Amino acid sequence: MTPSETVTAFIRAVERKDLDAALELLGDEISYENMPIQPITGKPGVRATLEAFLGGEVTDVDWQVLRQVESGTTVVNERLDRFRIGDGWLELPVAGVFEVDAAGRITLWRDYFDMNSYVQQRGALTGG
Amino acid sequence: MTPSETVTAFIRAVERKDLDAALELLGDEISYENMPIQPITGKPGVRATLEAFLGGEVTDVDWQVLRQVESGTTVVNERLDRFRIGDGWLELPVAGVFEVDAAGRITLWRDYFDMNSYVQQRGALTGG
Repeated sequence: MTPSETVTAFIRAVERKDLDAALELLGDEISYENMPIQPITGKPGVRATLEAFLGGEVTDVDWQVLRQVESGTTVVNERLDRFRIGDGWLELPVAGVFEVDAAGRITLWRDYFDMNSYVQQRGALTGG
Repeated sequence: MTPSETVTAFIRAVERKDLDAALELLGDEISYENMPIQPITGKPGVRATLEAFLGGEVTDVDWQVLRQVESGTTVVNERLDRFRIGDGWLELPVAGVFEVDAAGRITLWRDYFDMNSYVQQRGALTGG
């Protein structure tokens, strides 16, 4: 797989909530960085974060890749990450930067987004 | 200039607060989108926004381009946008998506960032 194909496969695994398949595509030294908060390092931390992010009231996950550009080992995409909660969808605009190593594992996953957009929609959809 | 060189020239003009040079690199139909807020369309709106953003207490502008990737007419960069206010620097992590037309004008400038990171730092540096 090319770096871009690896990132696409990772996104698709996340959408299926198939964390085993998703984690298989990450390097052991993975740094997962949601820019407004502290980075998470290593697969166990990524798994725990994704379980929280995709679990609970979230019944469906639909991450739409609007643009994806590859250059060497770097992949950048522009996404609309959608989470179904109850009768509504939380929709979060995201720009993601990925680094993929020679073995085809993602070693950096850095997402840029507005945290308040996430928090406010989540509150509205969960009523809390 | 390539699309990537056009984007770099635009960023450098912004750093110099040379709005005439910056606006010269934009198409008349420019859409300037700070993702947490409403898009701004057209050069007069971009000029007014940049004057507000770069003016007032901001004495220096230093936008560090950490990565920049080009594919066709699309340019994506990862930046640390720094603004000097008084004795301190406001530092905002940003991912930017640009489209450059055949005439070498930027028609889309879309920045992803955490609005609270900007607002809180600005408040701390201006004391308000």
